[in-house]
Amino acid sequence: MRFLSAAHGFARVAALGTCLAIVGPAAKLAWSQGHASPDQASPDQANPGRFLADFNKRVTTKVLPNGLTLILCERPEAPVFSYFTIVDAGDANDPGGQSGIAHMFEHLAFKGTKDIGTTDYAAEKIALDKVEDAYAAYDTEYRKRVGRDEAKLKQLHDAFLDAQKDAEQYVIPNEFTEIADANGASGLNAETSLDATQYFWSMPANRLQLWAYMESDRIANPVPREFYKERDVVMEERRMRVDSNPIGRMVEQFLAAAYVAHPYHRPNVGWESELSQITATEAAAFHKIYYVPANITIAVVGDVKPGDMAMFEKYFGTIPAGPKPEEMTTVEPPQTAEKSVVIKEPTQPLYLEGYHRPDYRDPDDAVYDAIQDIFSNGRTSRLYRSLVRDQQIAAQAEGFSGFPGDKYPGLFAFFAVPDQGHTPQEMRAAIHKEIDKLKAADVSDEELAMFKTRARADLLRGLGDNEGLAQQLAIYQLRYGDWRELFNQLQKIDSVTKADIRRVANKVFVDTNRTYAMVEFEAPKPSAQQQSQAGAQ
Amino acid sequence: MRFLSAAHGFARVAALGTCLAIVGPAAKLAWSQGHASPDQASPDQANPGRFLADFNKRVTTKVLPNGLTLILCERPEAPVFSYFTIVDAGDANDPGGQSGIAHMFEHLAFKGTKDIGTTDYAAEKIALDKVEDAYAAYDTEYRKRVGRDEAKLKQLHDAFLDAQKDAEQYVIPNEFTEIADANGASGLNAETSLDATQYFWSMPANRLQLWAYMESDRIANPVPREFYKERDVVMEERRMRVDSNPIGRMVEQFLAAAYVAHPYHRPNVGWESELSQITATEAAAFHKIYYVPANITIAVVGDVKPGDMAMFEKYFGTIPAGPKPEEMTTVEPPQTAEKSVVIKEPTQPLYLEGYHRPDYRDPDDAVYDAIQDIFSNGRTSRLYRSLVRDQQIAAQAEGFSGFPGDKYPGLFAFFAVPDQGHTPQEMRAAIHKEIDKLKAADVSDEELAMFKTRARADLLRGLGDNEGLAQQLAIYQLRYGDWRELFNQLQKIDSVTKADIRRVANKVFVDTNRTYAMVEFEAPKPSAQQQSQAGAQ
Repeated sequence: MRFLSAAHGFARVAALGTCLAIVGPAAKLAWSQGHASPDQASPDQANPGRFLADFNKRVTTKVLPNGLTLILCERPEAPVFSYFTIVDAGDANDPGGQSGIAHMFEHLAFKGTKDIGTTDYAAEKIALDKVEDAYAAYDTEYRKRVGRDEAKLKQLHDAFLDAQKDAEQYVIPNEFTEIADANGASGLNAETSLDATQYFWSMPANRLQLWAYMESDRIANPVPREFYKERDVVMEERRMRVDSNPIGRMVEQFLAAAYVAHPYHRPNVGWESELSQITATEAAAFHKIYYVPANITIAVVGDVKPGDMAMFEKYFGTIPAGPKPEEMTTVEPPQTAEKSVVIKEPTQPLYLEGYHRPDYRDPDDAVYDAIQDIFSNGRTSRLYRSLVRDQQIAAQAEGFSGFPGDKYPGLFAFFAVPDQGHTPQEMRAAIHKEIDKLKAADVSDEELAMFKTRARADLLRGLGDNEGLAQQLAIYQLRYGDWRELFNQLQKIDSVTKADIRRVANKVFVDTNRTYAMVEFEAPKPSAQQQSQAGAQ
Repeated sequence: MRFLSAAHGFARVAALGTCLAIVGPAAKLAWSQGHASPDQASPDQANPGRFLADFNKRVTTKVLPNGLTLILCERPEAPVFSYFTIVDAGDANDPGGQSGIAHMFEHLAFKGTKDIGTTDYAAEKIALDKVEDAYAAYDTEYRKRVGRDEAKLKQLHDAFLDAQKDAEQYVIPNEFTEIADANGASGLNAETSLDATQYFWSMPANRLQLWAYMESDRIANPVPREFYKERDVVMEERRMRVDSNPIGRMVEQFLAAAYVAHPYHRPNVGWESELSQITATEAAAFHKIYYVPANITIAVVGDVKPGDMAMFEKYFGTIPAGPKPEEMTTVEPPQTAEKSVVIKEPTQPLYLEGYHRPDYRDPDDAVYDAIQDIFSNGRTSRLYRSLVRDQQIAAQAEGFSGFPGDKYPGLFAFFAVPDQGHTPQEMRAAIHKEIDKLKAADVSDEELAMFKTRARADLLRGLGDNEGLAQQLAIYQLRYGDWRELFNQLQKIDSVTKADIRRVANKVFVDTNRTYAMVEFEAPKPSAQQQSQAGAQ
């Protein structure tokens, strides 16, 4: 049910590589404002049946002959529209040895096309091909296991840098975003998770055709402009978010331990050695497989009319068709033994544990949401009350479902930050006590009722603005083949029972299904190398 | 230095998927006999210098225009020859989502070619293509995430079975091996590790041309005959060696935890979900990349003459050239925290721990061999004396280097089986005590001398028979670009010092570089599901 891990506080911090490629300083603000203050006509929360009937009238769906799915929703209250494009491929689809490649597309999203962002595409194309050739020559020498020639390597690297420089002369920096901005776009953005890649912005209604041109051109004709520069940006992002960040390091090790076969095992920003050697040629191969119309769903919401569909077809219909990518074969085998990673560092202690759960299609999906709500939603939630308020051992404590994704079976995870003087072991014991309570006794009527009220309200509130609605329509259409499933969620929330919660808790929260990672405080000590030198003397 | 994990007792048991695809009941016997009793002219162990000079006269090496490396070594003492083919690709090269695919080639090794093993290849080809089409149709439906049609799935599966049956009518079972056998071949075999795939057998000298024809044809023109049948055989092998075997299960979890990015993380037999969905089409793609002449080294040893090279060229020179496969980009990041897997089962307790070490090219490679020898070689070794003989807490205890491979950085691992009434925790403590001793004090003169004597003897003894020599020549040629490096090993062994051993032990055997797995005995208890049902009542 929760598609974007960003919907959750901790997950937002921890979702490695889910960086927002902010374009322009105002963009992020606009996006968060859009979500925080839906000031357009709100749906009738009291009557979802009427609400759905209303949507049925407003929404037009069409699968184009090339396989691309378009959803159009009329909301003429203001002369604006928002769109949301989902490419059904994220870093879980990264080919072996190329982790982080899906995420590169987020960084290349608005670099332009054959027509936008270049002074002379024909010449630039030749120059970019030369960059690839130069890089390949360098890379082959670099990877040699025996007999690498360092002088030659240096020469080849210089040649690569020269080729890059040559290609840069054709670049018109930021032309794509400047065109968008000049035409009133706001919230221009892209996001990558392990599950999918998303692109979105909002615009005045009279720029609908311009948008259709820009978005379809961007999808069909991306140019790997400044690819290696952008790869360096992502490397730096990795250093900041993972390598130099205690939570980032812990989460990376935690997921690597929790998953053995499934790609949720990998950080979506990529392993350093792989990310640092991704090429534009590999990215083009990824694009060819995954950026095909049959793998793309686009929702447009706002001051649009069913008659606009013909214009959309004109632009999006020309994207060349390709076979729908194969579904992933890999299934994580059942976990049968507790696993752990114990990090000892002179830093803030932390505790994180997770249990494998099924994917979003599971009939109990809403039950996991209920458990998350009861454990973590606000100051009345069980973990906050117990660990933070009453025992005063934790600065923060929460449980969250569907991490690091939920397209495939994710984890139900618990995260706690010990207060000064307390340990990760105490967090573990206190969390297990709360889990045992949930397994042993029914939740209260109030807790169940509060979950349902909040979940319904959250769901409906998210539809109040064009951005949120476009996102949800696209997601549900993609995930269930019908956006109307969105409204069945209300039914699913309503039908969760106390017995469901106990049953699921007893099924999932078992020792052999657990992986944990902890950071234990340890005073700085001599490095292994220093020890070794001492030992050798 | 140890290329085949099979060289070591435990590793042999634990090297998942390194199964011997035995062809004919006498084959395995012949192979092990060949290694156990070298009864041909033995090299002069006292004088390796003269030995090398002698080899320089006997060995001819040639890289064919298509990139294939051939090594020919004259040993005319008996009218026989042995050969060893290495394809420089193992299961570490399996593409993402296709773990186990390199190993499939071991199983398909002797199924025949376009000319051998078929009654009518033209018709069989058409039938095999239909098998692939039928399987692809079935597989697409099988993988559907939403809206899978079970009736259609059954129908497609039946169609696939029919297509398979149709293709089988052209198969002449075992024709390839029967031709080999009828011409006096012995030890026909194949092996796959994470690092490489190897093929070898021995034959009378007057069958040299027949061998060249069969081996070159087998490499160039493999036919995916009975592919899906063989996939089932491998699935069964996985069940036997991993899923139904406590050591196999533990080792799989151990490696998955010890490695996060590098493919040593994966079992070479493959993850069940991936192995069970590998296709012959994917195998053909793997073959096209990795079974190119530039990636293959063949050594032939025995009653052969330099003049035979021309005949070899005639056969092996016609294999179409292809680009040398790219070297792997992935490098395992440094481990910074202890990791563990704790399995609780009603079974024999076990303990396994490992520390990351560099690959075979490391200047300290022979030092790791020395440490292995001192810990584990026979009844005078430290672990045996301490854990088995003196403390009487273990039935078995050893340390071994380069697991699960050594082409890439492998592990130095320790394995112990507690005696009745003793625990894996005791094994851990006793092993750590021995490690601490090695870090704190120099080994004795006797220990160091015994290592050197044994290592030299092992190395030279391995060259005493044609099979062993062919293997070593091929391996060293592949790994260092020159088979003569084999003889530098003697120098490397000789130069290991006591200080080297302490230095390396202090560098590698540190807490943060350790992963451990243990099986703790636990009486059988109700399953999670039974608990859950109880909890829900």
